[in-house]
Amino acid sequence: MLLEKIENANDIKKIDKSEYDALAQEIRDFLIEKISVTGGHLGSNLGTVELTMALHLTLDLPEDKIIWDVGHQSYTHKILTGRREGFDGLRQFHGMSGFPKRKESNCDAFDTGHSSTSISAGLGMVKARDIRGEKRTIVSVIGDGSLTGGMAYEALNNAAELETNFIIVLNDNNMSISENVGGFSKYLNNIRTANGYLDLKEGIYNALRKTKRGDNIVARIRRAKSSFKQLVIPGMFFEDMGITYLGPVDGHNIEELTRVIQEAKRVKGAVLVHAITQKGRGYEPAERHPARFHGAEPFDIGTGLPSHPRNVPNYTDIFSTVMCKLGQRNERVVAITAAMPDGTGLKRFHNMYPDRFFDVGIAEEHAVTFAAGLAAGGMRPVVAVYSSFLQRAYDQIIHDVCIQNLPVTFCVDRAGLVGSDGETHQGIFDLSYLSTIPNMNVCAPKNKWELSDMMKFAIEFDGPVAIRYPRGAAYDGLEEFRAPVELGKAEWICRGEDIALLAVGSMVKTAETVRNALCEKGYSVSLINARFVKPLDEDTVRQACAGHRLVVTLEENVAAGGFGERVRECISGLDTGVPIMSVTIPDVYVEHGNTELLKREIGIDADSITTRVLEKMEKMR
Amino acid sequence: MLLEKIENANDIKKIDKSEYDALAQEIRDFLIEKISVTGGHLGSNLGTVELTMALHLTLDLPEDKIIWDVGHQSYTHKILTGRREGFDGLRQFHGMSGFPKRKESNCDAFDTGHSSTSISAGLGMVKARDIRGEKRTIVSVIGDGSLTGGMAYEALNNAAELETNFIIVLNDNNMSISENVGGFSKYLNNIRTANGYLDLKEGIYNALRKTKRGDNIVARIRRAKSSFKQLVIPGMFFEDMGITYLGPVDGHNIEELTRVIQEAKRVKGAVLVHAITQKGRGYEPAERHPARFHGAEPFDIGTGLPSHPRNVPNYTDIFSTVMCKLGQRNERVVAITAAMPDGTGLKRFHNMYPDRFFDVGIAEEHAVTFAAGLAAGGMRPVVAVYSSFLQRAYDQIIHDVCIQNLPVTFCVDRAGLVGSDGETHQGIFDLSYLSTIPNMNVCAPKNKWELSDMMKFAIEFDGPVAIRYPRGAAYDGLEEFRAPVELGKAEWICRGEDIALLAVGSMVKTAETVRNALCEKGYSVSLINARFVKPLDEDTVRQACAGHRLVVTLEENVAAGGFGERVRECISGLDTGVPIMSVTIPDVYVEHGNTELLKREIGIDADSITTRVLEKMEKMR
Repeated sequence: MLLEKIENANDIKKIDKSEYDALAQEIRDFLIEKISVTGGHLGSNLGTVELTMALHLTLDLPEDKIIWDVGHQSYTHKILTGRREGFDGLRQFHGMSGFPKRKESNCDAFDTGHSSTSISAGLGMVKARDIRGEKRTIVSVIGDGSLTGGMAYEALNNAAELETNFIIVLNDNNMSISENVGGFSKYLNNIRTANGYLDLKEGIYNALRKTKRGDNIVARIRRAKSSFKQLVIPGMFFEDMGITYLGPVDGHNIEELTRVIQEAKRVKGAVLVHAITQKGRGYEPAERHPARFHGAEPFDIGTGLPSHPRNVPNYTDIFSTVMCKLGQRNERVVAITAAMPDGTGLKRFHNMYPDRFFDVGIAEEHAVTFAAGLAAGGMRPVVAVYSSFLQRAYDQIIHDVCIQNLPVTFCVDRAGLVGSDGETHQGIFDLSYLSTIPNMNVCAPKNKWELSDMMKFAIEFDGPVAIRYPRGAAYDGLEEFRAPVELGKAEWICRGEDIALLAVGSMVKTAETVRNALCEKGYSVSLINARFVKPLDEDTVRQACAGHRLVVTLEENVAAGGFGERVRECISGLDTGVPIMSVTIPDVYVEHGNTELLKREIGIDADSITTRVLEKMEKMR
Repeated sequence: MLLEKIENANDIKKIDKSEYDALAQEIRDFLIEKISVTGGHLGSNLGTVELTMALHLTLDLPEDKIIWDVGHQSYTHKILTGRREGFDGLRQFHGMSGFPKRKESNCDAFDTGHSSTSISAGLGMVKARDIRGEKRTIVSVIGDGSLTGGMAYEALNNAAELETNFIIVLNDNNMSISENVGGFSKYLNNIRTANGYLDLKEGIYNALRKTKRGDNIVARIRRAKSSFKQLVIPGMFFEDMGITYLGPVDGHNIEELTRVIQEAKRVKGAVLVHAITQKGRGYEPAERHPARFHGAEPFDIGTGLPSHPRNVPNYTDIFSTVMCKLGQRNERVVAITAAMPDGTGLKRFHNMYPDRFFDVGIAEEHAVTFAAGLAAGGMRPVVAVYSSFLQRAYDQIIHDVCIQNLPVTFCVDRAGLVGSDGETHQGIFDLSYLSTIPNMNVCAPKNKWELSDMMKFAIEFDGPVAIRYPRGAAYDGLEEFRAPVELGKAEWICRGEDIALLAVGSMVKTAETVRNALCEKGYSVSLINARFVKPLDEDTVRQACAGHRLVVTLEENVAAGGFGERVRECISGLDTGVPIMSVTIPDVYVEHGNTELLKREIGIDADSITTRVLEKMEKMR
């Protein structure tokens, strides 16, 4: 086993050149075996085995720095920096993260998770290096999907002015999570398939050389401004900005890669190395189904099929079905995703209504303002997006949607704890940041039928509405509670006299369990499904406060600006005297792991809440 | 007066061609005269007189749609759509907005204010048009400065796939508010000055034609993929993406502009019209000092100097001075602005420490992650930014700065009501959105000395700190209160027994006035300067609640997630029984106007607050 020789950073340099391919194969086998058990990002990691090896062969870690854009493709990097043992606990509670983490290794230069940040962070480190007179090499590795994110372009624009070395490796697999989109993707594709182009270039040169002043002209072209260099090199888009382009290079050829990276290290300025890679490389099911093996559940290595096929629908499935129905009923319904047709569940809508479906690339800012434009043009746009990614478009919601009170529906998936992706992906801020915004309306369904009802409500409503729902199985209890959704109206599930549980979305199910436990202890407990966080149902809140000895608010969101604080604010003038207990996510970043474990850890599971409530009631006796 | 003939949209079409130049001159004179009195955005409007005229001559409003990026260059558009009379009340309370507003005119297609949104919004309207089978022309007008914003690139990338008409006019004046920056700006500059290039192009053609197969090659080039078209046209950057490029065209030549726009209307796809304009055109002081005449205060037309020169320093001045001192003391201090070296006050730091100053373009997302990279590299970055623009980087603060707990200082200028820029620019959300973020620390100075002290505190602190301060004159009262700034510690200004005023930042001054008024009525009043909103000084809050009959929180921020809610949350378990009154900005978008008037309108001025408190005390008697 070559892998056993790699216990620390730079150990790869002890491996003989002739064994590189064998090592790459061992790494692939290792990744497939481990991820088949734990789940994780397989496709992107299989695509970057050689690229990572080449970087580790040409750099000196931790002195030199690699910033992995998004970061889920850093598994080989983790193996090569002595973290092979960590793969058994990958993405599990207290186990190794699926992303680079500075606290995990000094070879992880910068934490990532969201897309398109690596060039900005890398450029910052370059400037710090230069100011301090250090010599290290800094490399940002970014995928072609991440390049559709605007901040990557902002950073390229800024990096173009550099006069010292900064290496940007474009890991071009022609994919986001799903097919990549947009003009820039087409452009990269042109380069990739530019054999005909190279022939033509030769034709021009030969023709020129044969004319009297031809040689002269060719020489002038070589010296000319970047506007001409496309005659000589394919990556004009970058050269136009002032970034040296090297490539395209075969991203699975270690020798070629190391040669180009060495060349890149000599450039005085920003340099882009264009590496062509294949997602899922070397494992046939992953090559064939890149979206499924992007973030894979545990699977059978032989067939590539999930080990534990899902048999209950999750909220995304419900969303998916309802969108198709809405699309059929109302021709003005259009759907927008930022590079997540699969993850958000819009794929079926896309198949049914291709003209009313828009995948805009990894571009949440644009997605939201584009939706505002569609709404201003008379459409009923639905933006399907994960909670933590919608953070990217906070200003666009304030500035482009809500000032004009445009009827844009936000279907905010992965709201609350998301589990194994951890800190960067937890959707625990949306109730707060969305509630700050005038004209915005914010709600959350208690179960799968309510998601459907809220979507129907939102699409008819003449203003912006956000509906947030969690990752995972859609709750199918409480089917009998299906009062029509009305703006700012909560729903009474049970009426009691001692304690009122006021719960938002996913926490209604938890509150049911809490209620049962409290009832067993002899308390009479009301359960109220808040439905709307904004506008708040002030009447119901007041009734809850007036008619009970304790009010408990429950939400899967941070305390600051969340539902609990809105409730307190609402009753502050009333001097009800009733104490309010808030169950919220604490003011810390919640790490990765099974969500049930995480909830227990931070005290928002039914048992912890029951205990807290019982203690409080005891104290008040 | 030609202007008198223009009372409605499309009236310009009745003007004879021979009088266009005279009309342009009248518009310029009108703008200079009016803005010299009211203040407003002069430079950008003088630069777009002919461009706007050309658009109105070629389009049919309100059927066709123009989306003005940023929107402060829409004054000529307002004149040409019958709003000439509105200029006397420009940017004043209940007067005409300085930006496009759909509620102001049906010729304003989309509200703007922040940069780089117009292509996204325009593309949305194009898609809506196509789905509904409408025929209208849709034009987004975007400046070269706004093109440094990533979301413009996201939208271009998306628009490149269009197969129906969408016109993007690039209003290229080679400026943001200050000098434009970045690789892309250089690229546009190359086009602008490409005479030598055009000659060379001819040389290549002529040489090719003379060879045996030359004609053939030229023909192939014309048919070839976009990668070659740079031989024929200068705007390869756009063509590479799939966007037709027309230009460059003289943006002050109405005939040429109308010809090119007519041509652009015939393109089946996204087309970019590259118009070269001059900021401040036709008014010499504005041509010479573009930054000063960007958003101008009232000025003397003869000299171009401000009519009412400012004689008290504002918070930006204080920030500016302190930054220079900090830069001198600590070589790790670096400063970052997103295209606002003048507005944020960083210009002096730039002059003194050019290697430690970074203007990244209109790119707040990149600015923040770039700062995180600098901090990870050992620097002490200060991001100077306006409150409403920092909304753009909410995710980057959460994801790139705070997860890693990096020592980035945010100097958040224009926090609170900003006045004449209105809805889009009010900085009224920052206390809320910043407080949601784990590891973030948020404070606000009561006066100019405290801003200085807080900056010194932040630069030494080992984690992220945001300091928010308002537009306008720096308060120079309470000089004697200068206890050292400590994390999460409030400051007692006066101690009383009936009422405790707990005020944040700018509201400390207001609270002083309120206190005096209440004392005159015989009440004993405490005044506490909160200093930190996060972490909250819980001890002081508890003391305030324990020792008074009424606690009043005062902040220039929305209620949701603001200081008042944090205070309520803090004491919720205590059953103090003391009522808390929150003075906050209501849950509506606050329009433009003098900030004193606005404060009175929304009830956060000293008189309104005093009245509310007296009523409450009366009721509690």
